[in-house]
Amino acid sequence: MDAQVSDLTRLTAADAAAKIASGEITSVMLVEAYLERIKERDESVMAWEHLNPEYALEQARAADERRAFDQSTGPLHGVPVGIKDIIDTYDFPTENGTPAHKGRQPGEDAAIVSALRGAGAIIMGKTVTTELAVFYPNKTRNPHNLEHTPGGSSSGSAAAVADHMIPLAIGTQTGGSVIRPASFCGVYGFKLTHGTVSRTGVLMQAPPLDTLGVFANTVEDLGLIADCLTAYDPLDSWMRPRSRPRLREMALSEPPVDPLFAFVKSPAWDDYAEDTTRDAFPELVTALGEYCDEVELPSVFAEGLKMQKVIQNADIAKFYGPIAEKSPGILSDGLVERIEVGKSISAVEYNNALDVREALNAGLEEVFERYDAIITPASPGPAPKGLSTTGDAAFNAMWTYLGVPCTTLPLLEADGLPFGVQLVGARHDDGRLLRNSRWLVEHLNTSGDND
Amino acid sequence: MDAQVSDLTRLTAADAAAKIASGEITSVMLVEAYLERIKERDESVMAWEHLNPEYALEQARAADERRAFDQSTGPLHGVPVGIKDIIDTYDFPTENGTPAHKGRQPGEDAAIVSALRGAGAIIMGKTVTTELAVFYPNKTRNPHNLEHTPGGSSSGSAAAVADHMIPLAIGTQTGGSVIRPASFCGVYGFKLTHGTVSRTGVLMQAPPLDTLGVFANTVEDLGLIADCLTAYDPLDSWMRPRSRPRLREMALSEPPVDPLFAFVKSPAWDDYAEDTTRDAFPELVTALGEYCDEVELPSVFAEGLKMQKVIQNADIAKFYGPIAEKSPGILSDGLVERIEVGKSISAVEYNNALDVREALNAGLEEVFERYDAIITPASPGPAPKGLSTTGDAAFNAMWTYLGVPCTTLPLLEADGLPFGVQLVGARHDDGRLLRNSRWLVEHLNTSGDND
Repeated sequence: MDAQVSDLTRLTAADAAAKIASGEITSVMLVEAYLERIKERDESVMAWEHLNPEYALEQARAADERRAFDQSTGPLHGVPVGIKDIIDTYDFPTENGTPAHKGRQPGEDAAIVSALRGAGAIIMGKTVTTELAVFYPNKTRNPHNLEHTPGGSSSGSAAAVADHMIPLAIGTQTGGSVIRPASFCGVYGFKLTHGTVSRTGVLMQAPPLDTLGVFANTVEDLGLIADCLTAYDPLDSWMRPRSRPRLREMALSEPPVDPLFAFVKSPAWDDYAEDTTRDAFPELVTALGEYCDEVELPSVFAEGLKMQKVIQNADIAKFYGPIAEKSPGILSDGLVERIEVGKSISAVEYNNALDVREALNAGLEEVFERYDAIITPASPGPAPKGLSTTGDAAFNAMWTYLGVPCTTLPLLEADGLPFGVQLVGARHDDGRLLRNSRWLVEHLNTSGDND
Repeated sequence: MDAQVSDLTRLTAADAAAKIASGEITSVMLVEAYLERIKERDESVMAWEHLNPEYALEQARAADERRAFDQSTGPLHGVPVGIKDIIDTYDFPTENGTPAHKGRQPGEDAAIVSALRGAGAIIMGKTVTTELAVFYPNKTRNPHNLEHTPGGSSSGSAAAVADHMIPLAIGTQTGGSVIRPASFCGVYGFKLTHGTVSRTGVLMQAPPLDTLGVFANTVEDLGLIADCLTAYDPLDSWMRPRSRPRLREMALSEPPVDPLFAFVKSPAWDDYAEDTTRDAFPELVTALGEYCDEVELPSVFAEGLKMQKVIQNADIAKFYGPIAEKSPGILSDGLVERIEVGKSISAVEYNNALDVREALNAGLEEVFERYDAIITPASPGPAPKGLSTTGDAAFNAMWTYLGVPCTTLPLLEADGLPFGVQLVGARHDDGRLLRNSRWLVEHLNTSGDND
């Protein structure tokens, strides 16, 4: 029995869904396996904020009954998913990682949670977030080494997927909160193009930046879950109606010609790249040979890092300032400081930062005319030791600001800790990014045999 | 000949278009009549910034030839239109009412100018605007009394239509720049719902507020020209794709039941309503009897006036601050002061002002559940004497901020000067607003016989 349980937690989500759909396994079996793993591991990793094993099994039994009754299964039928605890769920509290929202129980689901239920997913529970999805760490540890940070702010989602406590999880990124923890925890992460996933029912930090993302153990699984999230929601004023991408299908498709990657150090390199990164990336570029050129972005892109901070801090002041005023002493000192910084940002600066983004994106489009995707670090290096910080978002913030889709692929390792290779695609070309991500993983796995 | 020329300038745009379509008159005849009127009057009124009689006739001849060739005519085929000089035209300069843009020649048309050409309109010329469409007056005078202001910022558009130099004109409103000059000049004015007309190629002052509007001599004509402006433009990030309203058709339709109006003094009444207004409106409400109740908006609406200023001033600083920096001394002192005020507005204040708008609109929707339209002053009273100011936008700014559609109907008069009754409708219910506007005019004209 133990061996089988262990096997089930190692299934990809796509395989698990296929086996449930065919009747080879049941959702109850799958959920039991993951609950067993959680029981075994979460005391150390602490990825979960709200979990109710009995309720998870209840959902799984209902999923199995629905399948038995009319054979209908959604793409995630019976597959458990973890939800970052800043995303509203009617059946779990959503406490946003702050005592200010202790016991907060939303009356309804966020739009994407409702979409996941519609796809047949089991809402396993809520995963740990940093304080209000900013930087102040919470309890989660890196499953590869408990003395290291898992990254943040989607700490629990990344750690839970990495530790096989769940095959899929949802996170959010305003600075680097999906790609960085995915890099540190050694899982696949995918931040979609800004404005393609509804944020209705998701804690607002900075609407021009806030973006949903997903965690999984394969590129195909990233597409599988992301496909469930892209319905148009007129309540999210940053969304536009557009045809839904077929992300999983694109992830599995072959590029029409071999892709060409642009290795971009990005404005963060000089100040933030650690030695591990300075060693690994040139090696990677060499290994890719004709498939990769080094490309330098115009120096104006350095503005991107600053502009992201202007928007994030001003909006942190707007959305979290009232919490600090209402409950003095309840927020971390660091966040209170950041609120003060944000209050001093003028409307002119803020709106100019939004305009600069359009100018930079026009420049970026030229890169994507020649190159299929950008290769760049996902984090300064592997997860730093200690739990007092979740690491730096310097390699993420500019891409978040630009609204482009990003993946991180767990291809690197140093001192027993994984770290990611980030791929960046053109806005609204998320499917192509997944295709190139899968291609890169397979290409390196194959050519790696010759090393 | 003179009599006939005079008759043609008195035609409604709808009648003129019908006569051109049927062949009863030609576009050349119509344009000649208006050019004659302009020649006679514009030395006094000074409504035009750029006018080229020969070029207008050239367009008219081309329109007549097209009709002769294949009988095809658009809804404005051969009808001349005036365009406020902050709206780009490839064939006229667009100088934005400031010496800073002297001789500025856009390379292409604004999206709406291109749409008007597509509807067959003759672009007669560019009408005078205040400095950068803010408050500093330009040369135009009120055609009803040359010692009085025509209002602004769409001064020339309002005066030219009022003085029968043109049957239709386009303006813009960020505070009260369509409704107020229409009121002062005694013409029909219509500011559409914010976000329903493209601003691509229109001078930006404050994108969350900037709205297109039209001037005409009947409600039907407002609908006729507005119908040409509502195509979706993805380049205007405040627009959403939606089905186009049929405004002229709605303007001409009968309400399913007699409308019920809400007389709303609005937060501006106490400080801004002049005696003429304090006399006229209660009389109007009495005359309307069962068709009108007085309704008091919750006191929170007073915020609307302040919030409009927050957004307008911050964005004036953003868009016009660089002009002041580049060319010191070129902007009026008043505008430079306003830029300084705008620079000090924080991003938090600005973004909160955008949020408050949604809350107030939710409150307004309750009013529109009971009432078909709001009746409220279009201006503090008739046009004030003197040309040093274009009057106050206090009765307009809140509605502009809320994004709701407004019309002004030239139903009132004091001391030989006209002033308007403003009707306000529910957002995106512009057609219903025009229907109720036409109903009100006809109802008062009919019942007026009994006075």
